[in-house]
Amino acid sequence: MTIKVAVSGASGYAGGEVLRLLAGHPDVSIGAITAHSNAGSRLGGLQPHLHSLADRVLVDTTVENLAGHDVVFLALPHGASAEIAAALPADTLVVDAGADHRLVDPMAWEKFYGSAHAGSWPYGLPELPGHRDKLRGARRIAVPGCYPTSSLLALTPGFAAGLLEPQDVVIVAASGTSGAGKAAKVNLIGSEVMGGMSPYGVGGGHRHTPEIEQGLSAAAGESVTISFTPTLAPMSRGILTTATARVKPGTDTAQLRAAWASAYADEPFVHLLPEGQWPHTKSVQGSNHAALQLAFDEHAGRVVATCAIDNLTKGTAGGAIQSMNIALGLEETAGLTLQGIAP
Amino acid sequence: MTIKVAVSGASGYAGGEVLRLLAGHPDVSIGAITAHSNAGSRLGGLQPHLHSLADRVLVDTTVENLAGHDVVFLALPHGASAEIAAALPADTLVVDAGADHRLVDPMAWEKFYGSAHAGSWPYGLPELPGHRDKLRGARRIAVPGCYPTSSLLALTPGFAAGLLEPQDVVIVAASGTSGAGKAAKVNLIGSEVMGGMSPYGVGGGHRHTPEIEQGLSAAAGESVTISFTPTLAPMSRGILTTATARVKPGTDTAQLRAAWASAYADEPFVHLLPEGQWPHTKSVQGSNHAALQLAFDEHAGRVVATCAIDNLTKGTAGGAIQSMNIALGLEETAGLTLQGIAP
Amino acid sequence: MTIKVAVSGASGYAGGEVLRLLAGHPDVSIGAITAHSNAGSRLGGLQPHLHSLADRVLVDTTVENLAGHDVVFLALPHGASAEIAAALPADTLVVDAGADHRLVDPMAWEKFYGSAHAGSWPYGLPELPGHRDKLRGARRIAVPGCYPTSSLLALTPGFAAGLLEPQDVVIVAASGTSGAGKAAKVNLIGSEVMGGMSPYGVGGGHRHTPEIEQGLSAAAGESVTISFTPTLAPMSRGILTTATARVKPGTDTAQLRAAWASAYADEPFVHLLPEGQWPHTKSVQGSNHAALQLAFDEHAGRVVATCAIDNLTKGTAGGAIQSMNIALGLEETAGLTLQGIAP
Amino acid sequence: MTIKVAVSGASGYAGGEVLRLLAGHPDVSIGAITAHSNAGSRLGGLQPHLHSLADRVLVDTTVENLAGHDVVFLALPHGASAEIAAALPADTLVVDAGADHRLVDPMAWEKFYGSAHAGSWPYGLPELPGHRDKLRGARRIAVPGCYPTSSLLALTPGFAAGLLEPQDVVIVAASGTSGAGKAAKVNLIGSEVMGGMSPYGVGGGHRHTPEIEQGLSAAAGESVTISFTPTLAPMSRGILTTATARVKPGTDTAQLRAAWASAYADEPFVHLLPEGQWPHTKSVQGSNHAALQLAFDEHAGRVVATCAIDNLTKGTAGGAIQSMNIALGLEETAGLTLQGIAP
Repeated sequence: MTIKVAVSGASGYAGGEVLRLLAGHPDVSIGAITAHSNAGSRLGGLQPHLHSLADRVLVDTTVENLAGHDVVFLALPHGASAEIAAALPADTLVVDAGADHRLVDPMAWEKFYGSAHAGSWPYGLPELPGHRDKLRGARRIAVPGCYPTSSLLALTPGFAAGLLEPQDVVIVAASGTSGAGKAAKVNLIGSEVMGGMSPYGVGGGHRHTPEIEQGLSAAAGESVTISFTPTLAPMSRGILTTATARVKPGTDTAQLRAAWASAYADEPFVHLLPEGQWPHTKSVQGSNHAALQLAFDEHAGRVVATCAIDNLTKGTAGGAIQSMNIALGLEETAGLTLQGIAP
Repeated sequence: MTIKVAVSGASGYAGGEVLRLLAGHPDVSIGAITAHSNAGSRLGGLQPHLHSLADRVLVDTTVENLAGHDVVFLALPHGASAEIAAALPADTLVVDAGADHRLVDPMAWEKFYGSAHAGSWPYGLPELPGHRDKLRGARRIAVPGCYPTSSLLALTPGFAAGLLEPQDVVIVAASGTSGAGKAAKVNLIGSEVMGGMSPYGVGGGHRHTPEIEQGLSAAAGESVTISFTPTLAPMSRGILTTATARVKPGTDTAQLRAAWASAYADEPFVHLLPEGQWPHTKSVQGSNHAALQLAFDEHAGRVVATCAIDNLTKGTAGGAIQSMNIALGLEETAGLTLQGIAP
Repeated sequence: MTIKVAVSGASGYAGGEVLRLLAGHPDVSIGAITAHSNAGSRLGGLQPHLHSLADRVLVDTTVENLAGHDVVFLALPHGASAEIAAALPADTLVVDAGADHRLVDPMAWEKFYGSAHAGSWPYGLPELPGHRDKLRGARRIAVPGCYPTSSLLALTPGFAAGLLEPQDVVIVAASGTSGAGKAAKVNLIGSEVMGGMSPYGVGGGHRHTPEIEQGLSAAAGESVTISFTPTLAPMSRGILTTATARVKPGTDTAQLRAAWASAYADEPFVHLLPEGQWPHTKSVQGSNHAALQLAFDEHAGRVVATCAIDNLTKGTAGGAIQSMNIALGLEETAGLTLQGIAP
Repeated sequence: MTIKVAVSGASGYAGGEVLRLLAGHPDVSIGAITAHSNAGSRLGGLQPHLHSLADRVLVDTTVENLAGHDVVFLALPHGASAEIAAALPADTLVVDAGADHRLVDPMAWEKFYGSAHAGSWPYGLPELPGHRDKLRGARRIAVPGCYPTSSLLALTPGFAAGLLEPQDVVIVAASGTSGAGKAAKVNLIGSEVMGGMSPYGVGGGHRHTPEIEQGLSAAAGESVTISFTPTLAPMSRGILTTATARVKPGTDTAQLRAAWASAYADEPFVHLLPEGQWPHTKSVQGSNHAALQLAFDEHAGRVVATCAIDNLTKGTAGGAIQSMNIALGLEETAGLTLQGIAP
């Protein structure tokens, strides 16, 4: 059986990556490809890397164009997904790469996004405790943000195992520029970003902060507070997350490694690397792989967990397709790879 | 039927790319993975992006280890392939990513490589006139160099159609650093190459010069002379080739476009882009796609043909696998993609 | 005596580089700093690298604000300079980094720029034969384009010495992205340009083509025709130009080297490198240095001359200040350096 | 009076940057330029960006060659400086860019460097409380490490003002590849580092950890413990440090800003940026500038202080020359600039 899929937001980076992966997925056929201002354009002029789809023409992002598919991927600015999703049939699988349905707490949503809360959907990070089951058969899925994906994968095993203190968690992450979207802004042009690094959204203001705290708190069973600083790195793709938390007294390195190793022992896409090998974002480029490593700094009493993902693949489109596979009962790894493009 | 494949030189870039593509090929199983100084090592420590093969252990590059496979890929320094190939059974398909068997003319070989000529094999660029047929059923294949692949794809249609003058052909190409190999040299370290460009092998001295002339001359039916200058660009992958030749009197733009368009009309991996769209190496990153565009500069009386490929994929490993597919009667596109990784 | 200088277009890359160099010039004081849409802004928010000028506030680019200075630098879009220059006193030195007064031939101007010709000024490339004298005492100077600077430095000695054929000159150049300006365009954002290369303006359409031909023809004493292809490289700064021309019969390598070596023997900023050393754009980053090397490809009958400059320094602002120094009788090297920022 | 200066380790990045800055210093003349394996070579072949010194020939790094200068810069592997310094006259100013004399505590030295402690010298970070006075007239100066420079500048004001808790300090820093030296290692080649990020030295093992703790503890007047994670970023130069510490109860944003602002109010090279502007490593490229910004994350109870420096300039050679200027009673800013090379 071939599953018919529509993709909205196809002229942006998230939508483009969804299409790239779907083009290689054995079980789907690509139906409507939609955009907003680029409706009417040939895909080849906007996403020249998607050569096999080059002659497809984008249509408007409307309910009419998206209806009649088994699966609809939404890669829209936040605020735009809720209305469209509400108008699609309940038995259509809607996978939302945007933020609208990620946060459970309406007050956190309103504080960080400044609009009415649209409710929350099953969260597309199957590696979190209990989440894979919630995705099975789901017809609405909220794809996690890219920073939350890497941050939650980095720290959840320690919290789930009760080994970490819930305060003074610090996360510093470096993201490739595609995380800022395909936007014509002077501060994003190559001349400005190549060869340099800068922080942004410092001091707790980034919208991914409550999403990370939501996931860690659920794993810990108590309220976890983080300091999160994102930085912009001179690369197109990739997130390297450095996450550190205080280790509870009496915990040793072996216990820490065991917690992470067992949490991901059966996961197809998330792996604790062998000791001595550190994650590199190039190793996971274009793949759905999340590579992790950790160290226990006994002097500081803290574990340092690092995680590398491709922000557009495991961090967005790959996670979306993995969740779709689970929801529809397909092979979880269909259309996804563990092999990165390197060098 | 599953084809059993061995890969030598697996710790380098060419060998790594062969493995990356084979890992996604539907018809093969990967047998021996061999290396020289890295024999005995875990692949995951050397090629961390090949996660599904991480626990495979490299063995020595010997005839014994390579024997017993249906296909053997050689990704060895030039000079090393001939001896090994001679010791493998005649019905084993040997695909040599090295230079040893590319040049037909022994004197050209000796002049540029300084050693005895090992003979020439069918040349793995099926898009050249008559070459696909020679690859069908072949058991020895010489994979073209990366610069020759892009240069020949750029200019061959014009020569084959008799529209170009054989003198004063000028080719300037920019290559990503992976073209220089995975070698610990100070001039290749990131601090030296990031943010800058430089030429090398200027003045006809590059070993790919006779290989390009060989192909163009065959297409033209007369001796073609080129001026070839390679430059090193601050990117890991990709070749952008700018090739220009004098157009014969009386030729117009329509004739030129028609020559290129018809040459590649049925090709799965080589495409003349729509007018107004120029090739970009990122669009073909990790794919087997060659993207071309040309312009007729009437003022200068020259056609300028540009071609973008991924030097490691279409320029090396992808071309090798495409040739293998043809030789064995598999689907020519098996295990290969037209979708690049972008941005 | 301190020279009072005004700089227009100060929020762009050319204007910013003029300011960077002027801030270290021993003989000048910086007066008005002007901009268009950014008038009223603090310079520190727009050009954060110019820290010693961070608190200066930009004023409107008007004749009133620019008047009353000894020197006025214009870094404006083409078409804007002529009117302002006409309104400034004749004894004010006006140095125009824009294109308006570069071309001598009105028809060439009209063909490539599509507007009325504003006339031509002394051309700020003192290394060309006879040009330094014309700059002495000048009060209007046209700064060359960045591609013409590197192309003319690369090939002029051979034409001036009568060693090169005037047809079939081919120039392929790779430029850093700052050459495209500080413009909010999607095709210039870091995600699009990092890690890839592409051509543009292929087939003779680039506006720098007539400017290069003008300079080479003047040196040759006959009409020189070029094929010029610019490419965009993944680096912020730098131009690497590969220029090749047919060598007249009977010319040998020694004659060629002698022509270039003698042409630049007394130049402070332009140097033929020792044999075996090739120019690298990083070596000239931020400096006013032009590094050259050449090779005679006897097989192809062509000389290949390569030149590396920083497009914003020697290619724009450095050349402008060098010309100002000559015009005003200052030390030609004042405020400029031969040391690049590397690695 | 002209000060005669010798530079050792001139073929490496630190030595090269010392030479670049000295070439523009108004008060010095460059005497011996020494190296180890490159002795006998022309500087132009090793450091082609130092064009005005291109014809200088490197001599051996011996006491004989270094003697007879007013100032000797040592840019040697750790362990090599102590012996040479001991053999130079006591009234020669020896500025050591290596680690040998940075740590006060012999046990910390032995633990992290595994050799006998050579003693400690005045520490060349004049912006730390009380340090400028100790540098005046000094004849032995230990130049700080690059990570310690940015980390100490980022956090010292808060500790000196008694606003921060001494535990749970977390520092994550991204460094350009030049910080790893000019070493022919496969993991440093451009193909490996361009387009990706990775951590290293995780878990407290980096040798700069005790140096940072030494400085922060001195400022705090009590023992400060840090978790320090360095990461490698795809850029040649620059360090972006993100440093975060718990704020003592009752402290507000105004107090925090006041502490940082007053600490650096009179500093020529270290500046707290205006609110809303974040440091970018490109803004300080090639300059001696350290740009800082901070935010108080009240939710997490932590201050986040970020600092951008050029690791080779303020982080090594610029700091060295600034310290030399102070030691010799020259203008502190001589030969140094606040203007970065951007874009």
